[in-house]
Amino acid sequence: MFSITVRDHIMIAHSFQGDVFGPAQRLHGATFVVDATFRRTELDDDNIVVDMGLASTELRSVIGDLNYRNLDDHEEFKGTNTSTEFLAALIADRLAGRIHAGALGENARGIAQIAVTLHESHIAWASYERAV
Amino acid sequence: MFSITVRDHIMIAHSFQGDVFGPAQRLHGATFVVDATFRRTELDDDNIVVDMGLASTELRSVIGDLNYRNLDDHEEFKGTNTSTEFLAALIADRLAGRIHAGALGENARGIAQIAVTLHESHIAWASYERAV
Amino acid sequence: MFSITVRDHIMIAHSFQGDVFGPAQRLHGATFVVDATFRRTELDDDNIVVDMGLASTELRSVIGDLNYRNLDDHEEFKGTNTSTEFLAALIADRLAGRIHAGALGENARGIAQIAVTLHESHIAWASYERAV
Amino acid sequence: MFSITVRDHIMIAHSFQGDVFGPAQRLHGATFVVDATFRRTELDDDNIVVDMGLASTELRSVIGDLNYRNLDDHEEFKGTNTSTEFLAALIADRLAGRIHAGALGENARGIAQIAVTLHESHIAWASYERAV
Amino acid sequence: MFSITVRDHIMIAHSFQGDVFGPAQRLHGATFVVDATFRRTELDDDNIVVDMGLASTELRSVIGDLNYRNLDDHEEFKGTNTSTEFLAALIADRLAGRIHAGALGENARGIAQIAVTLHESHIAWASYERAV
Amino acid sequence: MFSITVRDHIMIAHSFQGDVFGPAQRLHGATFVVDATFRRTELDDDNIVVDMGLASTELRSVIGDLNYRNLDDHEEFKGTNTSTEFLAALIADRLAGRIHAGALGENARGIAQIAVTLHESHIAWASYERAV
Repeated sequence: MFSITVRDHIMIAHSFQGDVFGPAQRLHGATFVVDATFRRTELDDDNIVVDMGLASTELRSVIGDLNYRNLDDHEEFKGTNTSTEFLAALIADRLAGRIHAGALGENARGIAQIAVTLHESHIAWASYERAV
Repeated sequence: MFSITVRDHIMIAHSFQGDVFGPAQRLHGATFVVDATFRRTELDDDNIVVDMGLASTELRSVIGDLNYRNLDDHEEFKGTNTSTEFLAALIADRLAGRIHAGALGENARGIAQIAVTLHESHIAWASYERAV
Repeated sequence: MFSITVRDHIMIAHSFQGDVFGPAQRLHGATFVVDATFRRTELDDDNIVVDMGLASTELRSVIGDLNYRNLDDHEEFKGTNTSTEFLAALIADRLAGRIHAGALGENARGIAQIAVTLHESHIAWASYERAV
Repeated sequence: MFSITVRDHIMIAHSFQGDVFGPAQRLHGATFVVDATFRRTELDDDNIVVDMGLASTELRSVIGDLNYRNLDDHEEFKGTNTSTEFLAALIADRLAGRIHAGALGENARGIAQIAVTLHESHIAWASYERAV
Repeated sequence: MFSITVRDHIMIAHSFQGDVFGPAQRLHGATFVVDATFRRTELDDDNIVVDMGLASTELRSVIGDLNYRNLDDHEEFKGTNTSTEFLAALIADRLAGRIHAGALGENARGIAQIAVTLHESHIAWASYERAV
Repeated sequence: MFSITVRDHIMIAHSFQGDVFGPAQRLHGATFVVDATFRRTELDDDNIVVDMGLASTELRSVIGDLNYRNLDDHEEFKGTNTSTEFLAALIADRLAGRIHAGALGENARGIAQIAVTLHESHIAWASYERAV
């Protein structure tokens, strides 16, 4: 199995609902360093998984509406805890959609899996992986 | 598959038995930066894998008796090479035990896998993963 | 010149005022990984700059009221851009105050300089250094 | 499953063929930080996956003919895009060959999988994993 | 003293002249992760050293003609060893020129020092610092 | 001012004397990731501070007698707390001695300063810098 990973980041505000979150129930924020991994069993005709430049562009595109935002104000997230895990899945799902839409090129249709990791600090991170 | 990872560290002394270890047969030591990963297929009702704060607390708890110790003096490790791989498995097993005991909360019973990585330097690390 | 550095982090929300900040004028957030450095010309009687454990405890103490907060709501910061640079200086000043108050021990009075670095992402950080 | 990973690096020049590569079609270069991972289900008699020192020596050996080279001049790579993904697989295949040749010791024959990751920058990396 | 640092990278080919360089006399390459630091004694009216976004843009601009290039082909570098140290100084000098030209804004004229670090691998880097 | 830095590491056991050290009074250990920095005002005739390969070799040489050792058994350290700060200075002094002895080459006599940083974990490190 081959993979490539590209990294970007977002800076957001949000709050959580539920006693388990303790002080994180207050409005606070996070820098999420986002790693997006694309996996496939064979390389394409150019000997790559997918063009890293294009992968970076699409990653930036799918996280653009989150960056420099208070996620509590997003209509899409009403009543949802925008946990690190949840956001990893959201970004992975969006990237899968971009592959299906052909935004990563025809060759990218050979991508079998996506994994997204969000680092919220130097001591904590969360991931989500799924089939494409 | 979802996962969260939390990081801590221990500073220990130990020695190894066996020619393969060369100079590491002498009493020496290591800082092990410990990454504990918890995986499950679906998020719980709070939209998380397990509370990161609680995961950190339990990780610290299960490595507490190793920290600032000479592992050669541990009765539990007599005749055992406390290799990085071995310690990764030991910590993973202890964390699995804590989940079974309910220490990470009722929701944590949905955790399917644990992986533990011990970084012994900037150029070497070891991991162990297992079902819960 | 000797120094020791200890690392911790905070997760905050805030917004900026001024056209130069572009989208960061919106309410957003950041994880700041905080490195606090203490410098002195000679080691103390224990052969250290200051106890690292005590330094960590004091660092955690002086950043405690910022963590999991919206800095826009702090009375102390009204009308102030809580930039990464500004926060580095705030934390350094607070640490200097703790040294003067004796909180880091009598030996810590030999500390000559403090430097604080706040990493806001994997590609951007800010620092402030001052005499004690 | 157990694993150990060792890290080394190479500094190479190369160019790519294909419009998808944009400016990387020009002769340029890269530092590849190389992580080689060895996995097995049970530890050997010494309580390890494979000796880390020996793993490091073999990794250095199999990347030696690439280091400080222009890969475009390698007869072996004529007409081949020496992408990060391709090089990860090349190194993994060479390591598997070394295991089969007994270079990592008799115990190393228990190694089940190899994974190789090449970091080409702080924001991009590629991996390949295979059975031994 | 305050500072901010922004990070980018370039991927180049080059060779060195001189016995001291050993195998690096051959055409090879490097990824240089570039950290550009700007220092000043007081913050500007917006409470910053210089806008990080603008600093990133200017850093990218001054390294643009080096990226994806064989430095041996640059007319400017004929007969010059384009060592990591040399390139750090080149980039610092270019950034100082941009400040003097007003490209980082009027407020940036208060910047007193520039430091540039180029990481050539996980185990080696070089820096240059100068007054503005 | 120019500088280059090279990185290596040692794995040692030791204990401390003094109440301030708490549990670190017990025999324990550490991996120290060692960064050695060499600074000078002008580059030499090869356009470098000092050859990085030679600097790495000398760094490895001066830390060799510490690696895989219990420092409590070193005659040289009897009655001395081998703190991270102390070891940083020890290594810096040894490197200065090597420069004076000509081991880093005649050109290396232009080196003005040495700084050594020892990282004892991902959240704590210590440095020492001195004139050559």
